[in-house]
Amino acid sequence: MKILFDKANILFQNGKSIKNGYLVVDGKKITYISNIKPEGHFDRVIDCSKKMLCPGLYNCHAHSPMSIFRGYGENLPLDRWLSEKIWPAEDKLTEADVYLSSMLSIAEMLKNGIISFSDMYFFSETTAKTIIESGIKANIGRCITAFDDTITAETDTRFKEGVELHKTYHNAADGRLKIDMSIHAEYTTVENTCRYVSDYALENGIGMQIHLSETAKEHAEGIARRNGLTPAEFFLKTGVFRANTTAAHCVHLSDNDIKILSENGVTAAHNPASNLKLGSGVMPLAKLIDAGVNVTLGTDGSASNNTLDILKEAYIASLLQKGTTGDTSKFRADVFVSMATENGAKAQGRVGAGILKEGAPADIILIDLNAINTIPYFDLADTFLFSANSSNVYMTMVDGKILYENGEFTTIDEEKLKFDFSNMIENFYGR
Amino acid sequence: MKILFDKANILFQNGKSIKNGYLVVDGKKITYISNIKPEGHFDRVIDCSKKMLCPGLYNCHAHSPMSIFRGYGENLPLDRWLSEKIWPAEDKLTEADVYLSSMLSIAEMLKNGIISFSDMYFFSETTAKTIIESGIKANIGRCITAFDDTITAETDTRFKEGVELHKTYHNAADGRLKIDMSIHAEYTTVENTCRYVSDYALENGIGMQIHLSETAKEHAEGIARRNGLTPAEFFLKTGVFRANTTAAHCVHLSDNDIKILSENGVTAAHNPASNLKLGSGVMPLAKLIDAGVNVTLGTDGSASNNTLDILKEAYIASLLQKGTTGDTSKFRADVFVSMATENGAKAQGRVGAGILKEGAPADIILIDLNAINTIPYFDLADTFLFSANSSNVYMTMVDGKILYENGEFTTIDEEKLKFDFSNMIENFYGR
Repeated sequence: MKILFDKANILFQNGKSIKNGYLVVDGKKITYISNIKPEGHFDRVIDCSKKMLCPGLYNCHAHSPMSIFRGYGENLPLDRWLSEKIWPAEDKLTEADVYLSSMLSIAEMLKNGIISFSDMYFFSETTAKTIIESGIKANIGRCITAFDDTITAETDTRFKEGVELHKTYHNAADGRLKIDMSIHAEYTTVENTCRYVSDYALENGIGMQIHLSETAKEHAEGIARRNGLTPAEFFLKTGVFRANTTAAHCVHLSDNDIKILSENGVTAAHNPASNLKLGSGVMPLAKLIDAGVNVTLGTDGSASNNTLDILKEAYIASLLQKGTTGDTSKFRADVFVSMATENGAKAQGRVGAGILKEGAPADIILIDLNAINTIPYFDLADTFLFSANSSNVYMTMVDGKILYENGEFTTIDEEKLKFDFSNMIENFYGR
Repeated sequence: MKILFDKANILFQNGKSIKNGYLVVDGKKITYISNIKPEGHFDRVIDCSKKMLCPGLYNCHAHSPMSIFRGYGENLPLDRWLSEKIWPAEDKLTEADVYLSSMLSIAEMLKNGIISFSDMYFFSETTAKTIIESGIKANIGRCITAFDDTITAETDTRFKEGVELHKTYHNAADGRLKIDMSIHAEYTTVENTCRYVSDYALENGIGMQIHLSETAKEHAEGIARRNGLTPAEFFLKTGVFRANTTAAHCVHLSDNDIKILSENGVTAAHNPASNLKLGSGVMPLAKLIDAGVNVTLGTDGSASNNTLDILKEAYIASLLQKGTTGDTSKFRADVFVSMATENGAKAQGRVGAGILKEGAPADIILIDLNAINTIPYFDLADTFLFSANSSNVYMTMVDGKILYENGEFTTIDEEKLKFDFSNMIENFYGR
């Protein structure tokens, strides 16, 4: 399948864009980008004269099965929300629930221009199947918690599930699906577990996903628990940061923590909406970027957000940076475009992805530039960040395959999915 | 025209809702709300079994002609943005530009469920025409600036324009359009002008719109300029608060300022997105509500926001309250529903509006509860605030007339408007 994106406004990172340009996708790759119209035969020509062509978006922190809990337990702080609402409900989850919930989350993400996500939860094999079926990309890990220091790699059933998942599904679907190791957080793990889990990640060259210093309480209690080590210092000491790690949240970091992330190539996944909604605070974005940390964006789960929308997260991240520092010009829009795209590819170990260039995977979205809320437009990155919203996503393509276009999915039966999901909800909350 | 909203999820304020209820609109009014199905003939029955029925939204601070400047001059602080970008461009505006720009803003607002807006700008007669034609409601005022203390009601051409506007258009279109008086801000006015403008508002029983303490700089400079009086104290002293006043922004207020607003029944229009984007800060929402101030929501102009979306403002306002205070449970979702609806009606002097009840004007929106991002739903107010976004607005009705439904406008030719607007843009920025 050879597709020509004709007369396109092509958004590059770093603010450089082409207006009225041409981009060719051949099979799974981008094979041509130029201002000069290419010759030859195309199976399809898409008129993009009133559309913006962008790299597809990365959601670097999600819990896709949690759409079942959307709106369940609002207006609570993180600790009460988890202990009173989420954990008891999670005990009732079945594979069938997780299948429908993950698929609903994937549908929402594709509709919102997200082409890849990083996920940590359980029932991971079920989520893996929804990823393979739907055509989206993802890095997922079986979330490992441990509260007993005598536990070993041989006796840790969660770890073994993670290893099994890795052996069965890593690089499945021609590399679309990658398996990471995942340690839930400092407050839900022990030293020994950190070591054997990160050893495995390192030996197998796979990524690592953790939660880090999401709330002030958790950060302070961690310091007390670990003899003065912050959660970041604890993960450094226990070897976790040897692997390519994505640390979600990073709201409460010391200057030394930020230095540790930078020196160890740890990605910080910024979840501004979830952090505000749960009263956790605002990640010090400028400090992290200034220290050279790879910052990406995440939605967190639907239970705490409530939507899986990286354009929204980029917008809120940018507004928070301007509004809480008073510095409106420090970061231009292209910084947030990079956070939503190429930085995400880097976090997921997807070399050469997240950017529109010849030879890159054809992970592309089209944004409507002729919507009531996107005219007029001047700078494409500004329009992407400030004017456009997820309802302006016209098309989402992953590895050269169109998965969503003009309101329709190509791999998901939306009406059937919503029908089955709604029936499942009635049943689940009746249990 | 008699319409039955059948099997509806009806969102009331204060968290009380009806599931599977019935609402009848007869002519311009709501005539029936109940759990019991009404008998009789209906011209139209709308199946609302998967929709939420809400009061229409109020945008209590806008500059509708400014959609022409959307995205023009991003990433600048307020003072530079005004002086380097907006003011020079405003000098080139014509009536024809303002007509198309206001109409585009109105289309965007209707699509986003906004049924009434408060507007301060110039070319107000042109904006008045777009309001009458489109079917939306609005309170608009000719924005009055004055820098000369010898100016009088007789020599002030801007004031005279405002008076003329009032005489010609107040209560036009059967009361849909109301004319307010408008003083731009403390830093752009003089005492004498405040007196004769507010005298006129008071004598004629009309509202007043001002900007108040938007930035720390403006607030501090005001205190220096007015011999120690804050901008709120200055407006109190000069009689402005005798009229039913809406003060936009209110980001930097002293405790005494908040007391003044409360005691004088001044509405604070909270514009969280614009305030963050321009680096102005975060309005102290909890303090204002605790003091009994009537708080509403505003978008500000498209030039600084960049979208006219009150659902987005309510969501950001709620996230900021939770995230910056750490208190996630202080205000439940219904507080923000009220800010977006009945508090707006109060600000605009529209008695009995902004709420779904028998006898109230039929200003109603429908929100899709079967969208990928709105399932599952539990509490309707939570779903309104946290899960739904403007793309879920299915229908907007003003005074019993459907102005927008399922992507189509009934009073605006969207394609022609966008075509004319885009041509105007090319011409305007080529001037």
